[in-house]
Amino acid sequence: MNNKLQMIENRLDELTASCGALHPTVCDAMRYSLLDAGKRVRPVFTLSFCEALGGDAESALDFACAVEMVHTYSLIHDDLPCMDDDDMRRGKPSCHKVYGEAVALLAGDALLTLAFGTIAQCKTVSADKIAAAAAELARLSGAAGMVGGQVIDLDSEGKSVPIETLRVLDAGKTCALIEAACVLGCICADADEAALSAARKYASGVGMAFQIVDDILDVTGDEAILGKPVESDAGNNKSTYVSLMGIEGASAEARRYTQEATAALDVLGGECEFLKDFAQKLLYRIS
Amino acid sequence: MNNKLQMIENRLDELTASCGALHPTVCDAMRYSLLDAGKRVRPVFTLSFCEALGGDAESALDFACAVEMVHTYSLIHDDLPCMDDDDMRRGKPSCHKVYGEAVALLAGDALLTLAFGTIAQCKTVSADKIAAAAAELARLSGAAGMVGGQVIDLDSEGKSVPIETLRVLDAGKTCALIEAACVLGCICADADEAALSAARKYASGVGMAFQIVDDILDVTGDEAILGKPVESDAGNNKSTYVSLMGIEGASAEARRYTQEATAALDVLGGECEFLKDFAQKLLYRIS
Repeated sequence: MNNKLQMIENRLDELTASCGALHPTVCDAMRYSLLDAGKRVRPVFTLSFCEALGGDAESALDFACAVEMVHTYSLIHDDLPCMDDDDMRRGKPSCHKVYGEAVALLAGDALLTLAFGTIAQCKTVSADKIAAAAAELARLSGAAGMVGGQVIDLDSEGKSVPIETLRVLDAGKTCALIEAACVLGCICADADEAALSAARKYASGVGMAFQIVDDILDVTGDEAILGKPVESDAGNNKSTYVSLMGIEGASAEARRYTQEATAALDVLGGECEFLKDFAQKLLYRIS
Repeated sequence: MNNKLQMIENRLDELTASCGALHPTVCDAMRYSLLDAGKRVRPVFTLSFCEALGGDAESALDFACAVEMVHTYSLIHDDLPCMDDDDMRRGKPSCHKVYGEAVALLAGDALLTLAFGTIAQCKTVSADKIAAAAAELARLSGAAGMVGGQVIDLDSEGKSVPIETLRVLDAGKTCALIEAACVLGCICADADEAALSAARKYASGVGMAFQIVDDILDVTGDEAILGKPVESDAGNNKSTYVSLMGIEGASAEARRYTQEATAALDVLGGECEFLKDFAQKLLYRIS
Protein backbone atom coordinates (compact mmCIF):
# COMPACT_ATOMS: atom_id res chain seq x y z
CA MET A 1 0.00 0.00 0.00
CA ASN A 2 2.68 2.53 0.95
CA ASN A 3 4.60 1.65 -2.16
CA LYS A 4 1.52 2.32 -4.31
CA LEU A 5 0.88 5.64 -2.58
CA GLN A 6 4.47 6.71 -3.14
CA MET A 7 4.32 5.80 -6.84
CA ILE A 8 1.11 7.82 -7.25
CA GLU A 9 2.49 10.82 -5.35
CA ASN A 10 5.70 10.91 -7.40
CA ARG A 11 3.94 10.55 -10.73
CA LEU A 12 1.33 13.24 -9.97
CA ASP A 13 4.23 15.53 -9.10
CA GLU A 14 6.05 14.74 -12.36
CA LEU A 15 2.98 15.09 -14.56
CA THR A 16 2.03 18.51 -13.21
CA ALA A 17 5.61 19.82 -13.00
CA SER A 18 6.09 19.16 -16.70
CA CYS A 19 2.67 20.35 -17.91
CA GLY A 20 4.19 23.39 -19.64
CA ALA A 21 1.81 25.94 -18.12
CA LEU A 22 2.01 29.35 -19.82
CA HIS A 23 1.58 31.08 -16.45
CA PRO A 24 3.02 29.81 -13.14
CA THR A 25 -0.14 30.57 -11.15
CA VAL A 26 -2.30 27.98 -12.91
CA CYS A 27 0.35 25.33 -12.33
CA ASP A 28 0.68 26.35 -8.66
CA ALA A 29 -3.09 26.14 -8.15
CA MET A 30 -3.30 22.73 -9.86
CA ARG A 31 -0.48 21.37 -7.72
CA TYR A 32 -1.81 22.99 -4.54
CA SER A 33 -5.02 20.97 -4.76
CA LEU A 34 -3.54 17.81 -6.27
CA LEU A 35 -0.36 17.12 -4.32
CA ASP A 36 0.21 16.02 -0.71
CA ALA A 37 -3.51 15.69 -0.26
CA GLY A 38 -6.26 13.15 -0.33
CA LYS A 39 -6.48 9.47 0.40
CA ARG A 40 -5.70 8.43 -3.22
CA VAL A 41 -8.50 5.87 -2.99
CA ARG A 42 -9.28 5.96 -6.72
CA PRO A 43 -5.74 5.57 -8.09
CA VAL A 44 -5.13 2.76 -5.59
CA PHE A 45 -8.15 0.97 -7.13
CA THR A 46 -6.65 1.37 -10.60
CA LEU A 47 -3.26 -0.04 -9.63
CA SER A 48 -4.80 -2.82 -7.54
CA PHE A 49 -7.19 -4.06 -10.25
CA CYS A 50 -4.35 -4.09 -12.76
CA GLU A 51 -2.24 -6.17 -10.35
CA ALA A 52 -5.09 -8.45 -9.29
CA LEU A 53 -5.66 -9.37 -12.94
CA GLY A 54 -2.02 -10.19 -13.54
CA GLY A 55 -0.84 -6.85 -14.94
CA ASP A 56 2.05 -4.67 -13.84
CA ALA A 57 0.90 -1.83 -11.55
CA GLU A 58 3.50 0.47 -13.10
CA SER A 59 1.77 0.18 -16.49
CA ALA A 60 -1.48 1.51 -14.96
CA LEU A 61 0.15 4.44 -13.17
CA ASP A 62 -0.73 7.16 -15.70
CA PHE A 63 -4.34 5.96 -15.91
CA ALA A 64 -4.46 6.00 -12.09
CA CYS A 65 -3.14 9.57 -11.98
CA ALA A 66 -5.65 10.67 -14.62
CA VAL A 67 -8.53 9.45 -12.44
CA GLU A 68 -7.11 11.33 -9.43
CA MET A 69 -6.87 14.51 -11.55
CA VAL A 70 -10.55 14.19 -12.47
CA HIS A 71 -11.44 13.65 -8.81
CA THR A 72 -9.40 16.72 -7.78
CA TYR A 73 -10.88 18.99 -10.47
CA SER A 74 -14.37 17.96 -9.30
CA LEU A 75 -13.49 18.93 -5.70
CA ILE A 76 -12.08 22.32 -6.78
CA HIS A 77 -15.22 23.14 -8.75
CA ASP A 78 -17.50 21.68 -6.05
CA ASP A 79 -15.97 23.97 -3.42
CA LEU A 80 -16.60 27.16 -5.45
CA PRO A 81 -19.04 29.69 -3.97
CA CYS A 82 -21.64 29.00 -6.71
CA MET A 83 -21.56 25.29 -5.76
CA ASP A 84 -21.09 24.07 -2.16
CA ASP A 85 -19.09 27.15 -1.09
CA ASP A 86 -16.65 25.21 1.09
CA ASP A 87 -13.65 27.00 2.58
CA MET A 88 -11.69 23.93 3.70
CA ARG A 89 -10.68 20.79 1.83
CA ARG A 90 -8.23 18.03 2.68
CA GLY A 91 -7.12 19.92 5.79
CA LYS A 92 -6.24 23.20 4.12
CA PRO A 93 -8.06 26.19 2.60
CA SER A 94 -9.83 25.27 -0.64
CA CYS A 95 -8.27 26.29 -3.94
CA HIS A 96 -10.40 29.40 -4.49
CA LYS A 97 -9.67 30.67 -0.97
CA VAL A 98 -5.96 30.72 -1.87
CA TYR A 99 -5.99 31.59 -5.58
CA GLY A 100 -9.34 33.29 -6.08
CA GLU A 101 -12.39 31.95 -7.87
CA ALA A 102 -11.28 32.60 -11.43
CA VAL A 103 -7.92 30.83 -11.09
CA ALA A 104 -9.56 27.95 -9.19
CA LEU A 105 -12.10 27.52 -11.98
CA LEU A 106 -9.33 27.46 -14.60
CA ALA A 107 -7.08 25.19 -12.53
CA GLY A 108 -9.97 22.72 -12.39
CA ASP A 109 -10.45 22.99 -16.15
CA ALA A 110 -6.72 22.47 -16.69
CA LEU A 111 -6.64 19.39 -14.42
CA LEU A 112 -9.58 17.81 -16.27
CA THR A 113 -7.82 18.51 -19.55
CA LEU A 114 -4.51 17.16 -18.25
CA ALA A 115 -6.27 13.97 -17.15
CA PHE A 116 -7.17 13.17 -20.74
CA GLY A 117 -3.78 14.38 -21.97
CA THR A 118 -2.10 12.00 -19.53
CA ILE A 119 -4.12 9.05 -20.80
CA ALA A 120 -3.54 10.01 -24.43
CA GLN A 121 0.23 10.26 -23.96
CA CYS A 122 0.62 7.16 -21.80
CA LYS A 123 3.71 5.27 -22.99
CA THR A 124 3.07 2.00 -21.14
CA VAL A 125 -0.02 0.79 -23.02
CA SER A 126 -1.24 0.42 -26.61
CA ALA A 127 -3.31 3.01 -28.48
CA ASP A 128 -6.31 0.66 -28.28
CA LYS A 129 -6.13 0.73 -24.50
CA ILE A 130 -5.70 4.51 -24.52
CA ALA A 131 -8.86 4.94 -26.59
CA ALA A 132 -10.82 2.49 -24.42
CA ALA A 133 -9.66 4.14 -21.18
CA ALA A 134 -10.43 7.68 -22.38
CA ALA A 135 -13.89 6.58 -23.52
CA GLU A 136 -14.69 4.96 -20.14
CA LEU A 137 -13.35 7.90 -18.14
CA ALA A 138 -15.28 10.42 -20.24
CA ARG A 139 -18.54 8.47 -20.02
CA LEU A 140 -18.29 7.87 -16.29
CA SER A 141 -17.10 11.35 -15.30
CA GLY A 142 -19.37 13.40 -17.59
CA ALA A 143 -23.08 14.11 -17.87
CA ALA A 144 -23.92 10.39 -17.77
CA GLY A 145 -21.84 9.88 -14.62
CA MET A 146 -20.16 12.14 -12.07
CA VAL A 147 -21.30 15.51 -13.45
CA GLY A 148 -24.81 14.15 -13.93
CA GLY A 149 -24.86 13.13 -10.27
CA GLN A 150 -23.69 16.59 -9.25
CA VAL A 151 -26.59 18.16 -11.14
CA ILE A 152 -29.07 15.83 -9.38
CA ASP A 153 -27.37 16.89 -6.15
CA LEU A 154 -27.95 20.57 -6.94
CA ASP A 155 -31.55 19.86 -7.86
CA SER A 156 -32.08 18.00 -4.57
CA GLU A 157 -30.83 20.75 -2.28
CA GLY A 158 -33.32 21.97 0.25
CA LYS A 159 -35.74 19.17 -0.69
CA SER A 160 -36.49 15.89 1.02
CA VAL A 161 -35.68 13.36 -1.70
CA PRO A 162 -36.66 9.69 -1.62
CA ILE A 163 -33.98 7.03 -1.15
CA GLU A 164 -34.30 5.99 -4.82
CA THR A 165 -33.24 9.47 -5.97
CA LEU A 166 -30.35 9.40 -3.51
CA ARG A 167 -29.18 6.10 -4.99
CA VAL A 168 -29.15 7.51 -8.55
CA LEU A 169 -27.45 10.67 -7.28
CA ASP A 170 -24.69 8.72 -5.52
CA ALA A 171 -24.33 6.22 -8.36
CA GLY A 172 -23.43 9.25 -10.49
CA LYS A 173 -21.61 11.53 -8.07
CA THR A 174 -19.54 8.91 -6.26
CA CYS A 175 -19.72 5.42 -7.78
CA ALA A 176 -19.13 6.39 -11.42
CA LEU A 177 -15.59 7.71 -10.94
CA ILE A 178 -14.71 4.78 -8.67
CA GLU A 179 -15.97 2.52 -11.47
CA ALA A 180 -13.73 4.37 -13.93
CA ALA A 181 -10.78 3.86 -11.58
CA CYS A 182 -11.40 0.11 -11.34
CA VAL A 183 -12.17 -0.34 -15.05
CA LEU A 184 -9.06 1.54 -16.17
CA GLY A 185 -6.94 -0.86 -14.11
CA CYS A 186 -8.74 -3.78 -15.78
CA ILE A 187 -8.14 -2.33 -19.26
CA CYS A 188 -4.40 -2.14 -18.56
CA ALA A 189 -4.39 -5.82 -17.59
CA ASP A 190 -6.29 -7.00 -20.71
CA ALA A 191 -9.28 -8.04 -18.59
CA ASP A 192 -12.06 -10.11 -20.15
CA GLU A 193 -15.77 -9.25 -19.95
CA ALA A 194 -16.31 -11.32 -16.78
CA ALA A 195 -13.54 -9.47 -14.95
CA LEU A 196 -14.80 -6.09 -16.16
CA SER A 197 -18.29 -6.93 -14.96
CA ALA A 198 -16.96 -8.01 -11.54
CA ALA A 199 -14.97 -4.77 -11.31
CA ARG A 200 -18.07 -2.70 -12.09
CA LYS A 201 -20.07 -4.52 -9.38
CA TYR A 202 -17.25 -4.08 -6.86
CA ALA A 203 -17.02 -0.38 -7.73
CA SER A 204 -20.75 0.11 -7.35
CA GLY A 205 -20.81 -1.54 -3.91
CA VAL A 206 -17.66 0.17 -2.65
CA GLY A 207 -18.82 3.51 -4.06
CA MET A 208 -22.22 3.38 -2.36
CA ALA A 209 -20.61 2.31 0.94
CA PHE A 210 -18.02 5.09 0.55
CA GLN A 211 -20.73 7.72 0.12
CA ILE A 212 -22.79 6.42 3.04
CA VAL A 213 -19.72 6.48 5.29
CA ASP A 214 -19.10 10.05 4.09
CA ASP A 215 -22.64 10.96 5.13
CA ILE A 216 -22.12 9.29 8.52
CA LEU A 217 -18.75 11.03 9.09
CA ASP A 218 -20.40 14.35 8.27
CA VAL A 219 -22.44 13.80 11.44
CA THR A 220 -20.13 11.79 13.68
CA GLY A 221 -16.67 12.70 12.38
CA ASP A 222 -13.92 14.84 13.84
CA GLU A 223 -13.38 18.03 11.85
CA ALA A 224 -9.62 18.03 12.47
CA ILE A 225 -9.23 14.44 11.26
CA LEU A 226 -11.60 14.89 8.29
CA GLY A 227 -9.88 18.08 7.15
CA LYS A 228 -13.22 19.67 6.30
CA PRO A 229 -16.18 21.04 8.26
CA VAL A 230 -18.73 18.55 9.63
CA GLU A 231 -22.52 18.90 9.51
CA SER A 232 -22.29 20.56 6.11
CA ASP A 233 -25.09 18.35 4.76
CA ALA A 234 -27.51 19.50 7.45
CA GLY A 235 -26.34 23.09 6.88
CA ASN A 236 -27.00 22.73 3.15
CA ASN A 237 -30.35 21.03 3.81
CA LYS A 238 -29.29 17.88 1.98
CA SER A 239 -31.05 14.55 2.21
CA THR A 240 -28.49 11.86 3.04
CA TYR A 241 -28.56 8.21 4.08
CA VAL A 242 -28.28 9.42 7.66
CA SER A 243 -31.19 11.86 7.41
CA LEU A 244 -33.33 9.20 5.71
CA MET A 245 -32.30 6.03 7.62
CA GLY A 246 -30.61 7.18 10.83
CA ILE A 247 -26.99 6.37 11.71
CA GLU A 248 -27.73 2.73 12.55
CA GLY A 249 -29.70 2.12 9.37
CA ALA A 250 -27.09 3.86 7.24
CA SER A 251 -24.26 1.86 8.84
CA ALA A 252 -26.06 -1.40 8.11
CA GLU A 253 -26.57 -0.27 4.50
CA ALA A 254 -22.85 0.52 4.16
CA ARG A 255 -21.93 -2.93 5.50
CA ARG A 256 -24.38 -4.56 3.08
CA TYR A 257 -22.89 -2.71 0.08
CA THR A 258 -19.36 -3.58 1.16
CA GLN A 259 -20.37 -7.23 1.45
CA GLU A 260 -21.82 -7.13 -2.10
CA ALA A 261 -18.62 -5.51 -3.36
CA THR A 262 -16.27 -8.12 -1.96
CA ALA A 263 -18.57 -10.99 -3.02
CA ALA A 264 -18.42 -9.70 -6.62
CA LEU A 265 -14.68 -10.42 -6.67
CA ASP A 266 -15.08 -14.13 -5.96
CA VAL A 267 -15.35 -14.94 -9.68
CA LEU A 268 -11.84 -13.53 -10.19
CA GLY A 269 -10.09 -16.16 -8.07
CA GLY A 270 -6.91 -15.76 -6.08
CA GLU A 271 -5.33 -12.34 -6.15
CA CYS A 272 -8.13 -10.17 -4.77
CA GLU A 273 -7.32 -10.17 -1.06
CA PHE A 274 -5.93 -6.64 -1.19
CA LEU A 275 -9.10 -5.30 -2.85
CA LYS A 276 -11.32 -7.11 -0.35
CA ASP A 277 -9.32 -5.77 2.61
CA PHE A 278 -9.32 -2.29 1.08
CA ALA A 279 -13.13 -2.31 0.89
CA GLN A 280 -13.27 -3.20 4.59
CA LYS A 281 -10.74 -0.50 5.45
CA LEU A 282 -12.83 2.10 3.63
CA LEU A 283 -15.92 0.96 5.54
CA TYR A 284 -14.24 1.55 8.89
CA ARG A 285 -12.34 4.71 7.97
CA ILE A 286 -12.55 7.81 10.19
CA SER A 287 -11.55 10.36 7.55
CA MET B 1 -19.14 25.70 -46.83
CA ASN B 2 -22.87 25.37 -46.17
CA ASN B 3 -22.57 21.62 -46.48
CA LYS B 4 -19.77 21.59 -43.89
CA LEU B 5 -21.79 23.76 -41.50
CA GLN B 6 -24.81 21.48 -41.85
CA MET B 7 -22.71 18.37 -41.16
CA ILE B 8 -21.26 20.00 -38.02
CA GLU B 9 -24.66 21.19 -36.78
CA ASN B 10 -26.27 17.77 -37.22
CA ARG B 11 -23.43 15.90 -35.56
CA LEU B 12 -23.25 18.25 -32.56
CA ASP B 13 -26.98 17.69 -32.14
CA GLU B 14 -26.59 13.88 -32.31
CA LEU B 15 -23.61 13.74 -29.95
CA THR B 16 -25.30 15.79 -27.23
CA ALA B 17 -28.74 14.20 -27.66
CA SER B 18 -27.23 10.77 -26.99
CA CYS B 19 -24.87 11.75 -24.17
CA GLY B 20 -26.94 9.86 -21.58
CA ALA B 21 -27.17 12.71 -19.07
CA LEU B 22 -28.49 11.60 -15.68
CA HIS B 23 -30.44 14.84 -15.34
CA PRO B 24 -32.16 16.68 -18.22
CA THR B 25 -31.01 20.12 -17.06
CA VAL B 26 -27.31 19.52 -17.69
CA CYS B 27 -28.08 18.25 -21.19
CA ASP B 28 -30.35 21.25 -21.85
CA ALA B 29 -27.65 23.68 -20.71
CA MET B 30 -24.97 21.97 -22.83
CA ARG B 31 -27.19 22.08 -25.91
CA TYR B 32 -28.36 25.63 -25.21
CA SER B 33 -24.80 26.93 -25.54
CA LEU B 34 -23.58 24.50 -28.18
CA LEU B 35 -26.35 24.33 -30.78
CA ASP B 36 -27.63 26.91 -33.28
CA ALA B 37 -24.89 29.26 -32.24
CA GLY B 38 -21.44 30.36 -33.21
CA LYS B 39 -19.59 30.66 -36.48
CA ARG B 40 -18.16 27.10 -36.29
CA VAL B 41 -14.80 28.49 -37.40
CA ARG B 42 -12.78 25.82 -35.61
CA PRO B 43 -14.64 22.73 -36.84
CA VAL B 44 -14.58 24.14 -40.37
CA PHE B 45 -10.77 24.27 -40.07
CA THR B 46 -10.71 20.62 -39.02
CA LEU B 47 -12.84 19.43 -41.93
CA SER B 48 -11.03 21.68 -44.42
CA PHE B 49 -7.52 20.55 -43.47
CA CYS B 50 -8.59 16.94 -43.69
CA GLU B 51 -10.01 17.55 -47.19
CA ALA B 52 -7.09 19.72 -48.33
CA LEU B 53 -4.71 16.87 -47.49
CA GLY B 54 -6.72 14.29 -49.41
CA GLY B 55 -8.82 12.89 -46.56
CA ASP B 56 -12.58 12.52 -46.32
CA ALA B 57 -14.18 15.39 -44.35
CA GLU B 58 -16.72 12.96 -42.90
CA SER B 59 -13.93 11.04 -41.18
CA ALA B 60 -12.85 14.22 -39.34
CA LEU B 61 -16.36 15.19 -38.23
CA ASP B 62 -16.15 13.87 -34.66
CA PHE B 63 -12.74 15.49 -34.13
CA ALA B 64 -14.21 18.76 -35.48
CA CYS B 65 -17.16 18.56 -33.08
CA ALA B 66 -14.83 17.84 -30.16
CA VAL B 67 -12.92 21.06 -30.83
CA GLU B 68 -16.19 23.03 -30.98
CA MET B 69 -17.23 21.50 -27.62
CA VAL B 70 -13.95 22.67 -26.06
CA HIS B 71 -14.49 26.14 -27.53
CA THR B 72 -18.05 26.29 -26.19
CA TYR B 73 -17.10 25.10 -22.68
CA SER B 74 -14.44 27.83 -22.57
CA LEU B 75 -17.05 30.47 -23.48
CA ILE B 76 -19.49 29.22 -20.82
CA HIS B 77 -16.80 29.36 -18.12
CA ASP B 78 -15.42 32.66 -19.44
CA ASP B 79 -18.85 34.30 -19.14
CA LEU B 80 -19.28 33.33 -15.46
CA PRO B 81 -19.42 36.18 -12.93
CA CYS B 82 -16.04 35.20 -11.42
CA MET B 83 -14.47 35.52 -14.90
CA ASP B 84 -15.61 38.13 -17.48
CA ASP B 85 -19.17 38.31 -16.12
CA ASP B 86 -20.82 38.59 -19.54
CA ASP B 87 -24.60 38.42 -19.80
CA MET B 88 -24.85 37.92 -23.56
CA ARG B 89 -23.15 35.47 -25.90
CA ARG B 90 -23.84 34.51 -29.50
CA GLY B 91 -26.91 36.73 -29.55
CA LYS B 92 -28.65 35.26 -26.52
CA PRO B 93 -28.31 35.33 -22.72
CA SER B 94 -25.20 33.46 -21.56
CA CYS B 95 -25.58 29.99 -20.10
CA HIS B 96 -25.46 31.06 -16.45
CA LYS B 97 -28.10 33.74 -17.00
CA VAL B 98 -30.51 31.01 -18.10
CA TYR B 99 -29.48 28.03 -15.97
CA GLY B 100 -27.69 29.62 -13.02
CA GLU B 101 -23.99 29.61 -12.23
CA ALA B 102 -23.75 26.10 -10.80
CA VAL B 103 -25.42 24.39 -13.75
CA ALA B 104 -23.42 26.50 -16.21
CA LEU B 105 -20.18 25.51 -14.49
CA LEU B 106 -21.16 21.82 -14.67
CA ALA B 107 -22.43 22.06 -18.25
CA GLY B 108 -19.01 23.45 -19.20
CA ASP B 109 -17.30 20.59 -17.37
CA ALA B 110 -19.57 18.08 -19.09
CA LEU B 111 -18.87 19.56 -22.55
CA LEU B 112 -15.11 19.42 -21.99
CA THR B 113 -15.47 15.81 -20.87
CA LEU B 114 -17.72 14.95 -23.82
CA ALA B 115 -15.14 16.45 -26.19
CA PHE B 116 -12.59 13.84 -25.15
CA GLY B 117 -15.25 11.14 -25.03
CA THR B 118 -16.20 11.98 -28.61
CA ILE B 119 -12.60 11.67 -29.78
CA ALA B 120 -12.10 8.44 -27.84
CA GLN B 121 -15.21 6.84 -29.32
CA CYS B 122 -14.70 8.06 -32.88
CA LYS B 123 -15.47 5.17 -35.24
CA THR B 124 -14.01 6.67 -38.42
CA VAL B 125 -10.29 6.62 -37.48
CA SER B 126 -7.75 4.24 -35.95
CA ALA B 127 -6.87 4.11 -32.24
CA ASP B 128 -3.45 5.61 -33.08
CA LYS B 129 -5.16 8.69 -34.51
CA ILE B 130 -7.51 8.88 -31.52
CA ALA B 131 -4.55 8.90 -29.12
CA ALA B 132 -2.65 11.49 -31.19
CA ALA B 133 -5.70 13.75 -31.51
CA ALA B 134 -6.55 13.58 -27.80
CA ALA B 135 -2.94 14.36 -26.89
CA GLU B 136 -2.84 17.42 -29.19
CA LEU B 137 -6.22 18.71 -28.05
CA ALA B 138 -5.30 18.29 -24.37
CA ARG B 139 -1.92 20.01 -24.76
CA LEU B 140 -3.29 22.91 -26.79
CA SER B 141 -6.44 23.51 -24.73
CA GLY B 142 -4.94 23.07 -21.24
CA ALA B 143 -2.46 24.93 -19.05
CA ALA B 144 0.13 25.01 -21.85
CA GLY B 145 -2.40 26.47 -24.30
CA MET B 146 -5.89 27.95 -24.06
CA VAL B 147 -6.32 27.81 -20.27
CA GLY B 148 -2.77 29.13 -19.81
CA GLY B 149 -3.66 32.09 -22.02
CA GLN B 150 -6.80 32.73 -19.99
CA VAL B 151 -4.73 32.90 -16.80
CA ILE B 152 -2.35 35.42 -18.41
CA ASP B 153 -5.48 37.34 -19.44
CA LEU B 154 -6.71 37.42 -15.82
CA ASP B 155 -3.30 38.50 -14.64
CA SER B 156 -3.22 41.31 -17.23
CA GLU B 157 -6.55 42.87 -16.28
CA GLY B 158 -6.38 46.47 -15.22
CA LYS B 159 -2.70 46.66 -16.23
CA SER B 160 -1.08 48.10 -19.31
CA VAL B 161 0.78 45.10 -20.71
CA PRO B 162 3.45 45.24 -23.42
CA ILE B 163 2.70 43.87 -26.88
CA GLU B 164 4.98 40.87 -26.24
CA THR B 165 2.78 39.75 -23.33
CA LEU B 166 -0.31 40.24 -25.48
CA ARG B 167 1.18 37.96 -28.15
CA VAL B 168 1.84 35.16 -25.63
CA LEU B 169 -1.63 35.69 -24.16
CA ASP B 170 -3.34 35.43 -27.56
CA ALA B 171 -1.12 32.58 -28.71
CA GLY B 172 -2.55 30.68 -25.75
CA LYS B 173 -6.09 31.99 -25.49
CA THR B 174 -6.96 32.06 -29.18
CA CYS B 175 -4.33 30.49 -31.45
CA ALA B 176 -3.83 27.25 -29.51
CA LEU B 177 -7.35 25.90 -30.01
CA ILE B 178 -7.34 26.97 -33.67
CA GLU B 179 -4.07 25.05 -33.99
CA ALA B 180 -5.74 22.01 -32.41
CA ALA B 181 -8.59 22.32 -34.91
CA CYS B 182 -6.21 22.41 -37.88
CA VAL B 183 -3.90 19.68 -36.55
CA LEU B 184 -6.77 17.29 -35.80
CA GLY B 185 -7.87 17.58 -39.44
CA CYS B 186 -4.30 16.82 -40.52
CA ILE B 187 -4.11 13.76 -38.24
CA CYS B 188 -7.27 12.35 -39.85
CA ALA B 189 -5.69 12.72 -43.29
CA ASP B 190 -2.39 11.01 -42.33
CA ALA B 191 -0.47 14.27 -42.79
CA ASP B 192 3.33 14.21 -42.82
CA GLU B 193 5.53 16.48 -40.69
CA ALA B 194 5.77 19.17 -43.40
CA ALA B 195 1.99 19.42 -43.66
CA LEU B 196 1.60 19.50 -39.87
CA SER B 197 4.15 22.27 -39.62
CA ALA B 198 2.37 24.27 -42.34
CA ALA B 199 -0.95 23.79 -40.53
CA ARG B 200 0.55 25.04 -37.27
CA LYS B 201 1.93 28.18 -39.00
CA TYR B 202 -1.40 28.81 -40.72
CA ALA B 203 -3.24 28.40 -37.40
CA SER B 204 -0.89 30.77 -35.65
CA GLY B 205 -1.33 33.49 -38.30
CA VAL B 206 -5.08 33.05 -38.61
CA GLY B 207 -5.46 32.88 -34.82
CA MET B 208 -3.56 36.13 -34.20
CA ALA B 209 -5.50 37.87 -36.98
CA PHE B 210 -8.76 36.50 -35.56
CA GLN B 211 -8.00 37.90 -32.10
CA ILE B 212 -6.94 41.29 -33.47
CA VAL B 213 -10.16 41.52 -35.51
CA ASP B 214 -12.05 40.60 -32.31
CA ASP B 215 -10.33 43.49 -30.54
CA ILE B 216 -11.19 45.84 -33.42
CA LEU B 217 -14.84 44.70 -33.53
CA ASP B 218 -15.08 45.30 -29.79
CA VAL B 219 -14.54 48.98 -30.62
CA THR B 220 -16.08 49.37 -34.09
CA GLY B 221 -18.61 46.53 -34.22
CA ASP B 222 -22.38 46.49 -34.08
CA GLU B 223 -23.70 44.93 -30.88
CA ALA B 224 -26.73 43.43 -32.65
CA ILE B 225 -24.60 41.78 -35.34
CA LEU B 226 -21.89 40.65 -32.89
CA GLY B 227 -24.42 39.14 -30.49
CA LYS B 228 -22.48 40.42 -27.50
CA PRO B 229 -21.81 43.82 -25.91
CA VAL B 230 -19.13 46.03 -27.47
CA GLU B 231 -16.48 48.01 -25.62
CA SER B 232 -16.16 45.24 -23.04
CA ASP B 233 -12.35 45.36 -23.26
CA ALA B 234 -12.25 49.05 -22.33
CA GLY B 235 -14.82 48.36 -19.59
CA ASN B 236 -12.64 45.57 -18.20
CA ASN B 237 -9.50 47.72 -18.54
CA LYS B 238 -7.87 45.25 -20.89
CA SER B 239 -4.87 46.02 -23.06
CA THR B 240 -5.65 45.00 -26.65
CA TYR B 241 -4.05 45.46 -30.05
CA VAL B 242 -6.35 48.45 -30.52
CA SER B 243 -5.40 50.10 -27.22
CA LEU B 244 -1.69 49.52 -27.93
CA MET B 245 -1.51 50.19 -31.70
CA GLY B 246 -4.68 52.08 -32.64
CA ILE B 247 -7.28 50.78 -35.11
CA GLU B 248 -5.10 51.45 -38.17
CA GLY B 249 -2.05 49.77 -36.68
CA ALA B 250 -4.06 46.80 -35.46
CA SER B 251 -5.72 46.37 -38.88
CA ALA B 252 -2.33 46.34 -40.59
CA GLU B 253 -1.12 43.74 -38.09
CA ALA B 254 -4.17 41.54 -38.79
CA ARG B 255 -3.52 41.77 -42.55
CA ARG B 256 0.14 40.86 -42.02
CA TYR B 257 -0.76 37.79 -39.93
CA THR B 258 -3.35 36.67 -42.49
CA GLN B 259 -0.73 37.03 -45.24
CA GLU B 260 1.70 34.86 -43.21
CA ALA B 261 -1.03 32.28 -42.69
CA THR B 262 -1.92 31.88 -46.35
CA ALA B 263 1.75 31.88 -47.40
CA ALA B 264 2.40 28.96 -45.03
CA LEU B 265 0.03 26.82 -47.11
CA ASP B 266 2.05 27.18 -50.33
CA VAL B 267 4.17 24.14 -49.47
CA LEU B 268 1.02 22.00 -49.52
CA GLY B 269 0.29 22.51 -53.20
CA GLY B 270 -3.10 22.52 -54.92
CA GLU B 271 -6.08 22.00 -52.66
CA CYS B 272 -5.71 24.91 -50.26
CA GLU B 273 -7.81 27.58 -51.97
CA PHE B 274 -10.68 27.16 -49.55
CA LEU B 275 -8.40 27.61 -46.54
CA LYS B 276 -6.78 30.69 -48.08
CA ASP B 277 -10.17 32.23 -48.89
CA PHE B 278 -11.43 31.37 -45.41
CA ALA B 279 -8.52 33.25 -43.83
CA GLN B 280 -9.44 36.32 -45.92
CA LYS B 281 -13.10 35.99 -45.00
CA LEU B 282 -12.24 35.91 -41.30
CA LEU B 283 -10.08 39.03 -41.74
CA TYR B 284 -12.99 41.00 -43.16
CA ARG B 285 -15.75 39.59 -40.95
CA ILE B 286 -18.15 41.90 -39.12
CA SER B 287 -19.21 39.47 -36.39
